[in-house]
Amino acid sequence: MVSCDLTFEVEEPADIVLHIAAANSWVVHTERLDVATDGKALPAPVELATPHGGRLHLLRTPRGILSVSYRAELTASPDSAGQPAAAIRRDLPDLAQLTYLRASRYCPSDQAVGFAVAEFGHLPPGRARVEAITQWIEHRVGYVPGSSNVHSSATDVLLTGQGVCRDFAHLGITLCRALQIPARFAAVYAPGLAPMDFHAVFEAWFDGAWWTYDATRRAPRKGMVRVATGRDATDTAFLNVLRGIIALRSIEVTATVSGVLPLDDNLALHRLR
Amino acid sequence: MVSCDLTFEVEEPADIVLHIAAANSWVVHTERLDVATDGKALPAPVELATPHGGRLHLLRTPRGILSVSYRAELTASPDSAGQPAAAIRRDLPDLAQLTYLRASRYCPSDQAVGFAVAEFGHLPPGRARVEAITQWIEHRVGYVPGSSNVHSSATDVLLTGQGVCRDFAHLGITLCRALQIPARFAAVYAPGLAPMDFHAVFEAWFDGAWWTYDATRRAPRKGMVRVATGRDATDTAFLNVLRGIIALRSIEVTATVSGVLPLDDNLALHRLR
Amino acid sequence: MVSCDLTFEVEEPADIVLHIAAANSWVVHTERLDVATDGKALPAPVELATPHGGRLHLLRTPRGILSVSYRAELTASPDSAGQPAAAIRRDLPDLAQLTYLRASRYCPSDQAVGFAVAEFGHLPPGRARVEAITQWIEHRVGYVPGSSNVHSSATDVLLTGQGVCRDFAHLGITLCRALQIPARFAAVYAPGLAPMDFHAVFEAWFDGAWWTYDATRRAPRKGMVRVATGRDATDTAFLNVLRGIIALRSIEVTATVSGVLPLDDNLALHRLR
Amino acid sequence: MVSCDLTFEVEEPADIVLHIAAANSWVVHTERLDVATDGKALPAPVELATPHGGRLHLLRTPRGILSVSYRAELTASPDSAGQPAAAIRRDLPDLAQLTYLRASRYCPSDQAVGFAVAEFGHLPPGRARVEAITQWIEHRVGYVPGSSNVHSSATDVLLTGQGVCRDFAHLGITLCRALQIPARFAAVYAPGLAPMDFHAVFEAWFDGAWWTYDATRRAPRKGMVRVATGRDATDTAFLNVLRGIIALRSIEVTATVSGVLPLDDNLALHRLR
Repeated sequence: MVSCDLTFEVEEPADIVLHIAAANSWVVHTERLDVATDGKALPAPVELATPHGGRLHLLRTPRGILSVSYRAELTASPDSAGQPAAAIRRDLPDLAQLTYLRASRYCPSDQAVGFAVAEFGHLPPGRARVEAITQWIEHRVGYVPGSSNVHSSATDVLLTGQGVCRDFAHLGITLCRALQIPARFAAVYAPGLAPMDFHAVFEAWFDGAWWTYDATRRAPRKGMVRVATGRDATDTAFLNVLRGIIALRSIEVTATVSGVLPLDDNLALHRLR
Repeated sequence: MVSCDLTFEVEEPADIVLHIAAANSWVVHTERLDVATDGKALPAPVELATPHGGRLHLLRTPRGILSVSYRAELTASPDSAGQPAAAIRRDLPDLAQLTYLRASRYCPSDQAVGFAVAEFGHLPPGRARVEAITQWIEHRVGYVPGSSNVHSSATDVLLTGQGVCRDFAHLGITLCRALQIPARFAAVYAPGLAPMDFHAVFEAWFDGAWWTYDATRRAPRKGMVRVATGRDATDTAFLNVLRGIIALRSIEVTATVSGVLPLDDNLALHRLR
Repeated sequence: MVSCDLTFEVEEPADIVLHIAAANSWVVHTERLDVATDGKALPAPVELATPHGGRLHLLRTPRGILSVSYRAELTASPDSAGQPAAAIRRDLPDLAQLTYLRASRYCPSDQAVGFAVAEFGHLPPGRARVEAITQWIEHRVGYVPGSSNVHSSATDVLLTGQGVCRDFAHLGITLCRALQIPARFAAVYAPGLAPMDFHAVFEAWFDGAWWTYDATRRAPRKGMVRVATGRDATDTAFLNVLRGIIALRSIEVTATVSGVLPLDDNLALHRLR
Repeated sequence: MVSCDLTFEVEEPADIVLHIAAANSWVVHTERLDVATDGKALPAPVELATPHGGRLHLLRTPRGILSVSYRAELTASPDSAGQPAAAIRRDLPDLAQLTYLRASRYCPSDQAVGFAVAEFGHLPPGRARVEAITQWIEHRVGYVPGSSNVHSSATDVLLTGQGVCRDFAHLGITLCRALQIPARFAAVYAPGLAPMDFHAVFEAWFDGAWWTYDATRRAPRKGMVRVATGRDATDTAFLNVLRGIIALRSIEVTATVSGVLPLDDNLALHRLR
């Protein structure tokens, strides 16, 4: 079960985009998205599909206190991840792989090629490099809430040695891309995370599939539920304001699994659903 | 007629991606893409479609001198740009518009919101702001080959006051996005450009369509032929190397129109084909 | 009367440098600097002279709660500022002027030459440009506590349009230096500032003297008491830790004048004492 | 013997500052500084002393071709470096040491504390860390002319893994300061350098003295002659233009020693004269 409850103060009538629903790579048992201003229900948001199964919700709200409540019960789709990749080890990449090789706002991989090659270039290409990158970040970057901000890029974090989950993911992506490994950002619900919040991990492409890594080691990857996927956090913000003035007042996220959460050594191969 | 002839020295067998063909928003009369290493023709490259009609070509080459020759005769498709936009002035944006609001590697619009609002925020939204941005760039940034490099972002260019066509486009995009106007980068063939080379412009979304602007004023927009479209220059590089070692040795671009090139005041509305 | 009371938690025995005493361009009537750990007085700190009359205090403290209390009653020295400059309008600059033309950590003036010339280059050199810079900052940058951090440079602030007093000063210095006007940073006690805190302004060199500007307009320049002078905030930090672990717990600054605080139009020429 | 011959095209009458003379820590046998415009000798430049024995020369030149010719025969002063430091191992630092702990334009050490501590913090303070930093730079950064520019900072170079002598020195300084080791930049004449040019190294403070390091290993430290000393390259530019328009046309530097140049393992302790 995953859920999030958000409260906003809307000072000027606003058009907003929410990116909080579980991606459709899951079998949905029950799902609700309720939006209301000053307690009065708003029309159902317009849903927009995003790459890799993500779903945006567009919403227009008058002045007042906007409350957003999302909850869903999900089961892993039997034919999605967890099982062997669809064996599409082609010689030449598809467009998604090419796209996720490119430098992006928070992942300026073009600037870090020298560092990445010097630090990891002696390792065999593919999995060995991604694992070494993940362990390097785990050992070298401290998880320090408040140490970074919305403008911080992966190179800032490499240098200061401090960040939060999105920074860890940005740094992993940047070092992968600098070594010509396609890598992308995933926002997730993460059962077991403490304190509970939205979480972020990265996915790297090798051996014909996207594999998930989380250098923060703050939650087992097996329970994670994909929300949004993209080049970096610019593509996965849980709120975008298109018009109007709106301020977040409270946020509460939950994510649980039925049964016991699996341990995670953080290096075994895992594919995010 | 557009063409480009590229020569590369391939030091290690290489997989490369070319982004040089005219986008398929044109009616193609004749088109050839010839690739050869040391004078011996290579198998035809694999073509991959990219957003907005672009076409990538993937290619594997052995060691040697790789020559790439592309030429095409084109006519504007009667039902594409030039005519009124398809009148889709909806209240809420589609995914492309949302995507092109986001900060990107060379267009860190999140960092320039204060500057953009202070400089242009008093103008009416939409076209007036985009025109003011284009004129501001034209008056404030000098076209100086060699003044920027592959790592230069739009904010560098705003501060140094110097750049080349891609920098002008990046700055236009950045200021638009900072004002919540979707904006994207387009690589083009540009008849009339002197000295002739690949060229870059930007497109901004307002009044239900993408409109083209070129703050360099170095070629009339009417003759331009779209090659690639994206968030910024990361998405439109004419060459990406996936594997191997390869160095550009020469480049020759031509772009001509039959008849007389139109004058361009650079502010009349224009939609890039 | 100026004073500051600082409390620190010293976790590991520490060597620290305090930069809190009024510069010796003032006639001191009474002055006390008391330092104690867990209530027990420490030996008197070693005083070190810094450029432009500043005074550092070096201090060694054991573990515990360190309290620092400084207060001084001062009168403006009759032969210092306020009166005409010492008429050293030489054709060629002295070393201080050369030094304060150079780019520094928070004032990367080399990066902003193009912007500064385009925005202010049409004005006559000297005072007119400095005044225009000060007014530009006043109108374009919002005073927003928490909007910047210890890594923020003047170019960040120019773009985001937000900062605090040190950022306003950094931006003034940067734009001056980019126009070949020597400019430096001054940390001051500022009677009338609300909320009371340490304050920062900048000084620009023209017409044979250093003139003070404060684009924040948050306190009259006439009452200000110089503490430290330098290239930027790196030279004027009120605390530097050389060894050990120490954390600021509280800070209380006061600065008052006897009599009524003068109004300040912020553009009349003023020399900081 | 050291010399340099510079030719400039002066387009607008200019005031310039030259920083090319050997520092006065040397015994001068013969020394000449000739300046002429269009072959006509100019008045002798005004000499200005800079910290650590440096000497600036201020000069006014009309339009035309300015030629500057400096040459000097020098002997190491018997009481300067090479011999043991003046044993001033005091507990608390002097102002120079404090100054050279501070972040500067090209050495943003505040941004790299986390990286420096993670990479070098396990080593004993002082010499061991400076040597490890020097070796790290030597192994990790490639000497690639043209790879950096006048805006490149040490953190750019750490990430790109490429630079020239000033970048190597900036990176050494940055990592030292991030570990609380005072470090400064020195511009030098360097006999044995190939190709011959001005050179730059860094000096770190430990065990009561400033010790010289050159991570480029491109010339033996023993033959080097100090020209200028400062926080970074901003303090040591061989040319500053205060007024006017002037462009460098040619530069020729020579630096030779009588006798055989000593080998240099680059780690033995050395103090720059």
